[in-house]
Amino acid sequence: MHKGCAITVGDLGEFGVIQRISGRLPQGAAVLLGPGDDAAVLRAPDGRVVVSTDLLVEGRHFRRDWSSGYDIGRKAAAQNLADVVAMGADPTALVVGLGLPPDASTEWLDALTDGFREECDLVRASVAGGDIVRSETVVIGVTALGDLGGRAPVTRSGARVGDVVAVAGRLGHAAAGLALLEAGVAATGPLTSLVEAHRRPLPPYACGPEAAGLGATAMLDVSDGLLQDLGHVAGASGAGIVLDPAALPVPEALADAAALLGTDPLEWVLSGGEDHALAATFPHHVRLPPSWTVVGRVVEGEGVQVTGRTRTTGGWDHFRG
Amino acid sequence: MHKGCAITVGDLGEFGVIQRISGRLPQGAAVLLGPGDDAAVLRAPDGRVVVSTDLLVEGRHFRRDWSSGYDIGRKAAAQNLADVVAMGADPTALVVGLGLPPDASTEWLDALTDGFREECDLVRASVAGGDIVRSETVVIGVTALGDLGGRAPVTRSGARVGDVVAVAGRLGHAAAGLALLEAGVAATGPLTSLVEAHRRPLPPYACGPEAAGLGATAMLDVSDGLLQDLGHVAGASGAGIVLDPAALPVPEALADAAALLGTDPLEWVLSGGEDHALAATFPHHVRLPPSWTVVGRVVEGEGVQVTGRTRTTGGWDHFRG
Repeated sequence: MHKGCAITVGDLGEFGVIQRISGRLPQGAAVLLGPGDDAAVLRAPDGRVVVSTDLLVEGRHFRRDWSSGYDIGRKAAAQNLADVVAMGADPTALVVGLGLPPDASTEWLDALTDGFREECDLVRASVAGGDIVRSETVVIGVTALGDLGGRAPVTRSGARVGDVVAVAGRLGHAAAGLALLEAGVAATGPLTSLVEAHRRPLPPYACGPEAAGLGATAMLDVSDGLLQDLGHVAGASGAGIVLDPAALPVPEALADAAALLGTDPLEWVLSGGEDHALAATFPHHVRLPPSWTVVGRVVEGEGVQVTGRTRTTGGWDHFRG
Repeated sequence: MHKGCAITVGDLGEFGVIQRISGRLPQGAAVLLGPGDDAAVLRAPDGRVVVSTDLLVEGRHFRRDWSSGYDIGRKAAAQNLADVVAMGADPTALVVGLGLPPDASTEWLDALTDGFREECDLVRASVAGGDIVRSETVVIGVTALGDLGGRAPVTRSGARVGDVVAVAGRLGHAAAGLALLEAGVAATGPLTSLVEAHRRPLPPYACGPEAAGLGATAMLDVSDGLLQDLGHVAGASGAGIVLDPAALPVPEALADAAALLGTDPLEWVLSGGEDHALAATFPHHVRLPPSWTVVGRVVEGEGVQVTGRTRTTGGWDHFRG
């Protein structure tokens, strides 16, 4: 990354970096004015705009020796786009604030930019603007915007007793991949998919607007672990949630990794974040498409119970974790 | 800041911090759904949304020993709100990503939050959402959104030969204040206003939408220095700009500070950033209100010339600066 002969972002200077990044970022139809001015101008045809922001700090949210620039770009984009679809909206654009050490190579920056662009391509969004500053370590501030297309936003507070709880996307894969990396296990065969999952989530983007269209009563992006995040739904909705562990998907790779590390794969499924699955509640009569798996139900009471298990409170606290 | 008995953000934990911040942030009329969900939902009545983002890094953009939490909040909000008004839009909301060391005190965090809120109050905007993460040093990612109210966005590229160049707001004050701080001069009397200007800009918010309504052909927020920023207007518009130094405001405090430090106050006025003045071009027939001062004109050619002076290329490069 810091080879002596590589061109660095410090060599290019601020405006050179901006020019280089902008040149790799085609602008989609939602962008009326892209990078290069004081602000971008985006279409907001619904008359409302959905906006979410995340800050990613090197050493805390990613490591440059464990993830390529490309993967970091994909992941940073994905986690914000997932927040937008979790409201039932279609993402339109990202704006990105980037803190870079001057010795970061332009190759690394290009890869990061390409990662952002390719993740955005999955939902036809664009990186419409940003800010570049000097920083000791890499810092990435990402803000995603989206359009509701006439749909009501799906919040955390609408779950009703009798609703079913369903998930779309992967659970526990990224946590298992991180555990393998931390244990220094050389992942081979199916286990490589778990390490890949840590490097690059695969949020089920289409499922967010789909759920809103199906009448989801509550929805969120699973970023801190299923139990903790469903706890937010339960709390905000004034109800309890009971999960059926037998309904939770535990694919073979997860079971293999757990056996290797001597742990319970269901812990990853229940408490692992970073896969950016979606969890939603639906009226029980809604016929769900195969992308959604029913894993529990909304009951009177409070908190999240797992049938046959003591409640696990695991999850991610960004100060204590 | 790190007193042994103070409650820290690490003591509160992530959700405690979020709750504490949210409790200090009333939500304005543009916010349909505020903090606490995956994303905020804002009104965008124009059908377009203006969005700008900045990243501020401790040690680079502020120092906690030179600026209070309150001042840092004011400044971080101000520089983003200024970008939105520089497009001719009315700011509606900010979202803020905050990286905090666990030993930061809750008093400091409260002051930062209050600074954000009070700066937003000036333009009736709200802090509608955010993200809190752990970080070695304070990092602040701010994204501002705004509504054009039916006006065309005022970009950098519309200046035409024959237009006048005008500025609104202060120029060089923050740079002079920073120079006083760096020189270790104890500012007294009128000089304290310069140190205050470094700590807290006073962008002329109302002048942005006003200029758009008056038919401004180009506009930007002066963040990197008047010469450098007008150079962007000249370059994007394919024209030159001639500035009349005699027309540029050099108040007594600036002259006094320059005499004290043995420098030329016009250097601060021409090259100092961070006051977040607005610079705009207008057709020459437009009658400008007193908030705008004509300081030059748009001519055939390229670049920015200052009458009677060799062109100064000073300004701020975020990698080389």
